[in-house]
Amino acid sequence: MILFECDYQEGCAPEILSRLQATNMEQTIGYSGDGYCEQARQLILRKIDAPQAHVHFLVGGTQTNTAVIQYLLRPHQGVLCANTGHINVHESGAIEHNGHKVLALPSDNGLITATQVRDAMEAHLHDPNYEHMVQPGMVYLSLPSELGTLYSRQDLHDIYAVCRHYHIPLFIDGARLGYGLASPHCDLQWHDLPRLCDIFYIGGTKQGALFGEALVICNPDYQKDFRYFIKQGGGLLAKGRLLGIQFLTLFTDDLYMRLAHHAIDEALRIRQALLDKGYTLYRDSPTNQQFAIFEDSKLQALQREFMFSFWEKTDATHTAVRICTSWATRTEDVNRLIEAL
Amino acid sequence: MILFECDYQEGCAPEILSRLQATNMEQTIGYSGDGYCEQARQLILRKIDAPQAHVHFLVGGTQTNTAVIQYLLRPHQGVLCANTGHINVHESGAIEHNGHKVLALPSDNGLITATQVRDAMEAHLHDPNYEHMVQPGMVYLSLPSELGTLYSRQDLHDIYAVCRHYHIPLFIDGARLGYGLASPHCDLQWHDLPRLCDIFYIGGTKQGALFGEALVICNPDYQKDFRYFIKQGGGLLAKGRLLGIQFLTLFTDDLYMRLAHHAIDEALRIRQALLDKGYTLYRDSPTNQQFAIFEDSKLQALQREFMFSFWEKTDATHTAVRICTSWATRTEDVNRLIEAL
Amino acid sequence: MILFECDYQEGCAPEILSRLQATNMEQTIGYSGDGYCEQARQLILRKIDAPQAHVHFLVGGTQTNTAVIQYLLRPHQGVLCANTGHINVHESGAIEHNGHKVLALPSDNGLITATQVRDAMEAHLHDPNYEHMVQPGMVYLSLPSELGTLYSRQDLHDIYAVCRHYHIPLFIDGARLGYGLASPHCDLQWHDLPRLCDIFYIGGTKQGALFGEALVICNPDYQKDFRYFIKQGGGLLAKGRLLGIQFLTLFTDDLYMRLAHHAIDEALRIRQALLDKGYTLYRDSPTNQQFAIFEDSKLQALQREFMFSFWEKTDATHTAVRICTSWATRTEDVNRLIEAL
Amino acid sequence: MILFECDYQEGCAPEILSRLQATNMEQTIGYSGDGYCEQARQLILRKIDAPQAHVHFLVGGTQTNTAVIQYLLRPHQGVLCANTGHINVHESGAIEHNGHKVLALPSDNGLITATQVRDAMEAHLHDPNYEHMVQPGMVYLSLPSELGTLYSRQDLHDIYAVCRHYHIPLFIDGARLGYGLASPHCDLQWHDLPRLCDIFYIGGTKQGALFGEALVICNPDYQKDFRYFIKQGGGLLAKGRLLGIQFLTLFTDDLYMRLAHHAIDEALRIRQALLDKGYTLYRDSPTNQQFAIFEDSKLQALQREFMFSFWEKTDATHTAVRICTSWATRTEDVNRLIEAL
Repeated sequence: MILFECDYQEGCAPEILSRLQATNMEQTIGYSGDGYCEQARQLILRKIDAPQAHVHFLVGGTQTNTAVIQYLLRPHQGVLCANTGHINVHESGAIEHNGHKVLALPSDNGLITATQVRDAMEAHLHDPNYEHMVQPGMVYLSLPSELGTLYSRQDLHDIYAVCRHYHIPLFIDGARLGYGLASPHCDLQWHDLPRLCDIFYIGGTKQGALFGEALVICNPDYQKDFRYFIKQGGGLLAKGRLLGIQFLTLFTDDLYMRLAHHAIDEALRIRQALLDKGYTLYRDSPTNQQFAIFEDSKLQALQREFMFSFWEKTDATHTAVRICTSWATRTEDVNRLIEAL
Repeated sequence: MILFECDYQEGCAPEILSRLQATNMEQTIGYSGDGYCEQARQLILRKIDAPQAHVHFLVGGTQTNTAVIQYLLRPHQGVLCANTGHINVHESGAIEHNGHKVLALPSDNGLITATQVRDAMEAHLHDPNYEHMVQPGMVYLSLPSELGTLYSRQDLHDIYAVCRHYHIPLFIDGARLGYGLASPHCDLQWHDLPRLCDIFYIGGTKQGALFGEALVICNPDYQKDFRYFIKQGGGLLAKGRLLGIQFLTLFTDDLYMRLAHHAIDEALRIRQALLDKGYTLYRDSPTNQQFAIFEDSKLQALQREFMFSFWEKTDATHTAVRICTSWATRTEDVNRLIEAL
Repeated sequence: MILFECDYQEGCAPEILSRLQATNMEQTIGYSGDGYCEQARQLILRKIDAPQAHVHFLVGGTQTNTAVIQYLLRPHQGVLCANTGHINVHESGAIEHNGHKVLALPSDNGLITATQVRDAMEAHLHDPNYEHMVQPGMVYLSLPSELGTLYSRQDLHDIYAVCRHYHIPLFIDGARLGYGLASPHCDLQWHDLPRLCDIFYIGGTKQGALFGEALVICNPDYQKDFRYFIKQGGGLLAKGRLLGIQFLTLFTDDLYMRLAHHAIDEALRIRQALLDKGYTLYRDSPTNQQFAIFEDSKLQALQREFMFSFWEKTDATHTAVRICTSWATRTEDVNRLIEAL
Repeated sequence: MILFECDYQEGCAPEILSRLQATNMEQTIGYSGDGYCEQARQLILRKIDAPQAHVHFLVGGTQTNTAVIQYLLRPHQGVLCANTGHINVHESGAIEHNGHKVLALPSDNGLITATQVRDAMEAHLHDPNYEHMVQPGMVYLSLPSELGTLYSRQDLHDIYAVCRHYHIPLFIDGARLGYGLASPHCDLQWHDLPRLCDIFYIGGTKQGALFGEALVICNPDYQKDFRYFIKQGGGLLAKGRLLGIQFLTLFTDDLYMRLAHHAIDEALRIRQALLDKGYTLYRDSPTNQQFAIFEDSKLQALQREFMFSFWEKTDATHTAVRICTSWATRTEDVNRLIEAL
């Protein structure tokens, strides 16, 4: 079987394993206070051209989202996000467990707009019973979104302008950030990010690392005491250097983007094959997640050889699935899939 | 100005004040352990014919909802309710603050159906990523609903059957319970309640008391240790007898229902007048909350003499408002309103 | 039986009931937005000479403590308080339920010192693993303490100086504030309070009201959005005017202090009788809670006529009890007790 | 510099890195649903002879403690533990953040007794205000303790008997479990564990893994829905196989215990050297953490070559430090230390 279910089905980029091997018996202090973490931080800050930012390393996405949202919100506030947002759907209620309502905005394509954010703020401010309602206290968005779609530079600029107008922070979930930046349809560059949001993270788990996310706190107002939140949330890795070594490797010789470009190339080959052969796209994505609709008997035939993620039944005889590529996708596997299509 | 904004704009039924006066300097033990509370409990249990139920007295509705929902849910669970539900909209995120997602079901009229509950349970149970999602752990509904509408005996029977099938409790918010039971359109009786849900409460604040809600825990599985939750939530009134005395008075000589019937009579007079005069009802309610749509200039004229609750703009020139009656509504004020309509 | 168990065993000062009676059928808007609340606020602000302070009315003490502590702390912070503090012992874990560790400081007499606070701050700041520990984020103290003891003006001055040095707020639980200020051993005056802490509350429940606490937020940094916290905690009383009317009455013609002085006079008569008759004081209190140690057979004899609060067994044959007076204590009952001693 | 600060200063056992290398490009499903995790589970269940137990893999200790305690407690309950317990001191308030008071029992040596647990339960049950206090709902203990000390088989038997009597679960934090079982002073064996508690975990992070803890839920009453808690707490590793592969390797050919024995041998050599040379032990530990008191000038001399963990100043001129060995400690480094002593 060839698995196209998600982007975390293999181990890690071989360069990372080699580096772990080479450093294995060195002694370092714990909790990301070591030199590898420090080097990785410096490489990232240089890449995004934001020397004043803080970088923290965490193990996974839910953990990172929870720590950030909890840090940013006061107890009476909630987080605005697309109804498709990972925090609204696939984190077992972690945000609510930490005390905050997810204020879901309707979205068909995984994206939200500056207008939606402004309208939500205005509606709250003008409600005669506003103190009886959850105050919107920040904006969360995913880049690329959970449906593979992308915000443009202008989109982010507009959303961030609204956020600053209402004095609420903007947080970008970049679990697949590289797959976004590597897309030919993306007009964002690394150094744009610290200028278009307050906090974002650079996903490692899905992009070549064994695990790990690099959180970048761009706005100095949100930097103090953040490590307490990582520890309290159970996310402060004892052997923190494992995260440092991984990100150091990923940001050396542009490995991170080279891996990302590979995934995008393969994904867009699949997309083109789907279109060429007359299949309907469930959503049109320029990134590593492709969403296609298959007639059920065709799907069953494909599933004898390939595994996809079930997305939803679109009608009685058709099903939408997600087809994921990653840094590890083999070109011959994509060839096999295209042939089978 | 005559206020029709809500049902808590006056003090309390004069009988209650007299009783408070008569007992004022008696010494009793605190925290509802006194004889008045005990007598009130017995009257309520007799009224609903459920000798095994437990009755607790709390000060207000949000407090009661929070304590119950927290008691019933495990940390990974959420509460199913109509998107219009009080806990979803008007409790400043109290449920989320206590750790639980409100799983809002779409509702146009304030009610949910047995089918919606079953579908939500099935969708969760069959989702391949169910452990990444919030598990529906209970059902919350309001009787009457926040839009004044009513569940029939059959509706509740069906919802409760689904709840028992999936082993999740059903909780009824009865902040305006009397106004429901007093409606000519209601086919429920007091003794039906403990047979059609696990927990419900009998609203006092909006129905003639100074404050107070009588929570009835019908299902013995949910009775143990409940008082800890009241105390932890800041809801254990030191002079608990104040609650006992009020409910004792309300359930003596059927005062509670007499007050409720008065409110319903006046509300239905307003409803009839609206229809007679050709106004559009925003929602058709058989209880003490009436929802009407007025042309804006007409509304401004009315607002020189009367206060209503703003509900929403229905179009550029029309506005929906809520007109509330209560136990305290004066017949001459309703006459004045009907005249002005 | 004559009850000396606590200070909330009767109803309320007759002046309050009269005022509730007189205003009962008036219509007012809800949630403390009415004119009575506004008048009460103005009287309190004048009394403490702090025109810029904000006053909020809540129903009870646990609710007030929870709302304030939650407002003041960030998620990684805890609250410093005496190990005897109400929040540490008698609130069913409400503070922890809301996410915060109570950092209990050892105290034999119910009081903490400026030195203890400073030492706790220094210990945290210098711990090599400080980010793995709870950061002390505020100080809570009770005036009078749970053992009836009092802070002097100088004590508070010193504690508040330490708090300001470390930029942490000081909150005073004044559930029995009047009984403190009315003591001949107290050198504090009303207008000192807003100058010696950031937030405090004036207890009503134990001092002549049916229920209610008036929270005073002196420091403008802690005033924004506080009402959301009251509502989220289930503490926003629908008929908020009930609180306004009570405090308006208590702060008219100095009723609050007249009631307090009565309780203190009676308490000190009991204290003197205990000393005169050779009983041992468990703790020496200058306020309305007296703590005495009785030989067990003597205690049993007294308990045929009087009820006290059990405090602890001090040895095999002796027991410490709390004897409480209040605004409602009858002089003849105290006479009876002194005689029985 | 030679580091004896803690037991997580190197990478992992070389066997683990080899296995990660060998499996790196295999495709597996996520979230510990893969075959490696399943094999590791089976090895562990066989080792402890408890086929009905459930095994879950988590990344770190704080995460594991939080998930378990949250699973086991109801909102009104707290966890009994030694005042030295990791959850009470070094988890940044994670337990309180999740809503529960840590009910710390005084302990001089890191251990608690069955009598302490029984006394705490009885004190709560007989307190007249028990509903105003936190109900003890479970027991947490560490084996070995944070001071390196050990419970005997009889100790655990007695504590667990008390727990079962009061119907509260017993949870053992085994972050250093192997270092306990490998001590010549330990009379416990692997198969004793599921018979002497309800839940325990087998530490990997400090015992040869890169990271990871294997949680064993022995009591079937506590097995349902546990994975929701892991996910909600941000602890469900996407590439779960990394945990499976590590524990599979550790439990193959008894690697886990071989690594542990090495650490204990080296630790006991240090202990003997300390005693031989007349140093005072701060606490006498039979496991991999040794606690010694040094005169400050001696300590400074040692610190030119070695790093220890500061523990506390024992008087003006002496300091207690922790000296840790681990699976990775080099014999020549210990020789160097003994020489320097």
